[in-house]
Amino acid sequence: MTADRTIDDLETPCVLVDLDRASANILRAQAYADAHGKKLRPHIKTHKLPFWARKQVEAGAVGITCQKIGEAEVMADAGIADIFLPYNIIGRQKLERLLALHRRITLSVTADSRETIEGLASVFTDPDHRLTVLVECDTGMARCGVQSPQEALDLAKRIDAAPGLRFGGLMTYPAAGKAAEANAWLKEARDLLAKQGIACERISSGGTPDMWHAGDSDVITEYRPGTYIYLDRYQVAKDVGTADNCALTVLATVVSKPTATRAILDSGSKALTSDTLGMDGFGEIVGIPGASVTGLSEEHGNVTLAAGADLSIGDRVRILPNHACVVSNLFDEVHLVSGDRVIETVPVAARGRVD
Amino acid sequence: MTADRTIDDLETPCVLVDLDRASANILRAQAYADAHGKKLRPHIKTHKLPFWARKQVEAGAVGITCQKIGEAEVMADAGIADIFLPYNIIGRQKLERLLALHRRITLSVTADSRETIEGLASVFTDPDHRLTVLVECDTGMARCGVQSPQEALDLAKRIDAAPGLRFGGLMTYPAAGKAAEANAWLKEARDLLAKQGIACERISSGGTPDMWHAGDSDVITEYRPGTYIYLDRYQVAKDVGTADNCALTVLATVVSKPTATRAILDSGSKALTSDTLGMDGFGEIVGIPGASVTGLSEEHGNVTLAAGADLSIGDRVRILPNHACVVSNLFDEVHLVSGDRVIETVPVAARGRVD
Repeated sequence: MTADRTIDDLETPCVLVDLDRASANILRAQAYADAHGKKLRPHIKTHKLPFWARKQVEAGAVGITCQKIGEAEVMADAGIADIFLPYNIIGRQKLERLLALHRRITLSVTADSRETIEGLASVFTDPDHRLTVLVECDTGMARCGVQSPQEALDLAKRIDAAPGLRFGGLMTYPAAGKAAEANAWLKEARDLLAKQGIACERISSGGTPDMWHAGDSDVITEYRPGTYIYLDRYQVAKDVGTADNCALTVLATVVSKPTATRAILDSGSKALTSDTLGMDGFGEIVGIPGASVTGLSEEHGNVTLAAGADLSIGDRVRILPNHACVVSNLFDEVHLVSGDRVIETVPVAARGRVD
Repeated sequence: MTADRTIDDLETPCVLVDLDRASANILRAQAYADAHGKKLRPHIKTHKLPFWARKQVEAGAVGITCQKIGEAEVMADAGIADIFLPYNIIGRQKLERLLALHRRITLSVTADSRETIEGLASVFTDPDHRLTVLVECDTGMARCGVQSPQEALDLAKRIDAAPGLRFGGLMTYPAAGKAAEANAWLKEARDLLAKQGIACERISSGGTPDMWHAGDSDVITEYRPGTYIYLDRYQVAKDVGTADNCALTVLATVVSKPTATRAILDSGSKALTSDTLGMDGFGEIVGIPGASVTGLSEEHGNVTLAAGADLSIGDRVRILPNHACVVSNLFDEVHLVSGDRVIETVPVAARGRVD
């Protein structure tokens, strides 16, 4: 896998990950977190690769974040020793798997309901090796999470009342651009708990879009960015980085040119997904201004060519996708590249770990 | 894998495929094709399973359709003897793989350009074992395909002029609801070619939305439906079948109930994709009217509960997805069920075969 290959040797569509850019993105985020006294706990959903999880920890991350037990199992197998699973784990089989993980690594999870806590308490019963549970707070995202600081207090007490559990703090995933509201919410909750003598060891927030404002918060202690390692078209639109910071592209071939203004790529929604994240189109073609991916079917990408933009059958292009994380989830392997050199081809070990 | 299991024994999220419904869908489509004198060549993109490809052929299909060489390789390995690859195969590596396939099975492909034909002709050179090439026609879909019957004639001549190729007819993927326009286009092309003494052995159309009108056409000889085997929310909206005909569902668990009108499932875009196909929402919860999947992030599905609809943490639900094909592409395995019994768990062998 380390032969002298260039991207010209690869079949398309495939995923290229620029080693130099991703490495720089890791270091940049870690330096920012260090400078602002925050712990960094990167979310591996974006890359799903033990290779990068190890690099993130080596750079100074306190541990990693996974979203599903299956991802955490892969990362524990790869030697990652501290994993946060900010998810309500429900059901006997999953709780047994969680317990097995807890015996191997430093594990923490979240809960946003009495039901989740009761489930955890039924399986985690050892007072000498308690599971750390943070309370998930809905600070504006309208997804999971308790709806008020009072509810957070109630759940914190319930966690600490279970012999095999310990309250570890608060966790949120803030709505994009609503970091200030999230901070105010968390501060109110922290202070309410403090009045009852309950300390929040960790207050964890996340999200790449607002990552460069994480240092502004005087309440959060840890941050969980995911997409920052690769970035993507959406993050560039949000000014998190520039196109030159983006590490993941999809290499595609022009397979048809039916009209002067339409070219068809061999990369459709099975390579890019239909995620638009509110933007026009499905990706940007690197280095060819005026060529936009305006339509996708499963195996075809429709490119609309504006005046001055041209593509010919057989041309290879690199597509900057709207959303990097979901692309990683579609491919069994990715190519780690430096410039046009292929350094290594690695399996996406945590791909498709849905449960 | 054939122990006495029910869907209650499965971890979520996972994919359930109802054997009885899918089998009935196969037979219904085959009976319709037979009654109307059309050959059926199902597209395996929907299921990606050798299990179903074999059943489709056993039921009377003339062969199968794949969209990528990697899919065709999997299906050839599984014993499928006649495969149509309606795609412009571009690039030396892919052409070599195509040649290897051609030596094993009855293979046909499409071309919509001189470049594609030249590539094929450079690798397929044996006049005693010619590759069958159909001309892809853009009859309104605005994707691949020649733009006029005259162009189709030109390419047919080029194909027949190459010693290792033979012209096999015309192929289109019509725009949804535009079957009549597609038929008119194909008829004009067929008649133009006939005037030059060039016969169209096959005229192939496809698409589940219009499949029950395939018999109305006096020009097409073969039909390539894909989604018909499982159906999905989109096909039900298009009146291709009813909800009771739909064979694929995603089994999910309620993991959070933050408010009275919001429940969160453990199934997000990594289980359902963000395909809307122009509809509202991301799937329908079977048997719970008023519960709609109104938002997705990667690992969470937001359900909005109307008055009268309720879900509790720990409840399991079955989601009818908007688009079945893309769901098959996300999961490494699916569970074949009969009612609530799990008959067999099978790997999705052709999943992720992007090239």
